[in-house]
Amino acid sequence: MHVKIRKATPEDMGQVLELIKELAHFEKEPDAVIVTEKQIIEDGFGDNPLFECFVAEKETKILGMALCYFRYSTWKGRTLHLEDLIVNENYRGKNIGLQLYKEVMQFATENQVKRVEWVVLDWNKNAIDFYQKTGAKVLEDWRIAQFDEASLQKFIQNS
Amino acid sequence: MHVKIRKATPEDMGQVLELIKELAHFEKEPDAVIVTEKQIIEDGFGDNPLFECFVAEKETKILGMALCYFRYSTWKGRTLHLEDLIVNENYRGKNIGLQLYKEVMQFATENQVKRVEWVVLDWNKNAIDFYQKTGAKVLEDWRIAQFDEASLQKFIQNS
Repeated sequence: MHVKIRKATPEDMGQVLELIKELAHFEKEPDAVIVTEKQIIEDGFGDNPLFECFVAEKETKILGMALCYFRYSTWKGRTLHLEDLIVNENYRGKNIGLQLYKEVMQFATENQVKRVEWVVLDWNKNAIDFYQKTGAKVLEDWRIAQFDEASLQKFIQNS
Repeated sequence: MHVKIRKATPEDMGQVLELIKELAHFEKEPDAVIVTEKQIIEDGFGDNPLFECFVAEKETKILGMALCYFRYSTWKGRTLHLEDLIVNENYRGKNIGLQLYKEVMQFATENQVKRVEWVVLDWNKNAIDFYQKTGAKVLEDWRIAQFDEASLQKFIQNS
């Protein structure tokens, strides 16, 4: 499908947030999204933007989005992290995801990063197949560790 | 062991880089470190620093380091990523790692992040045990996907 791929504006973030909530539902955590439209606009479009966002637009409807930001590897230098790539479920299988993915990788190349990284659920075989077909590697031996807000507070208070 | 925990300065980065190379050796990729001292100083101490680094110092020797930077969760908001926490192998088991870990978590709390995240190799049982004892979760179902520089170039050229 022919869509326009462009950088997101603050006005897009309402529709972008709908896509984020759709993904949370797919990943079986529908209540996990606490970010608001106001917050995401502040975070992405203030003096010190925390991310870069691209959207796929058809007429005035946002059909997909990709959101990324820079990270740092102490082995390699500056890298790019692709946090989310989401296509509205009614518009899947129309190459929109691939167009967004290419845009992010183009952005990575222009910014001369040493690596692009993202995460995928191990049961999401479609996504894993797609990534591997494009030449990306899926690492088997690394695990993600995290403190959420509550466990971080608890650790700080007890230490 | 009593060490001074403080923010790193550009002058520390030579010793910090030695620790980074020590970790790469431990993780069985001794040749993977391509970052130079000059590069890491530019990246961390320029107009737009890509990371925050803390060191554990005894007299003028750097015995350990922790390096982190902010990321963004579209579900939660701003998060902190702990990229590396390294203690010189001759000084392990002396609580230096814990002191650096606490410093990073304190920094996270002061910056009101919604989550702190890092990665660990699935065979590094000592590290996993330590993290879990502090209340952190190790996620089993997420995998890391990545393009390195060469595969990214190849993808861009073929697409």
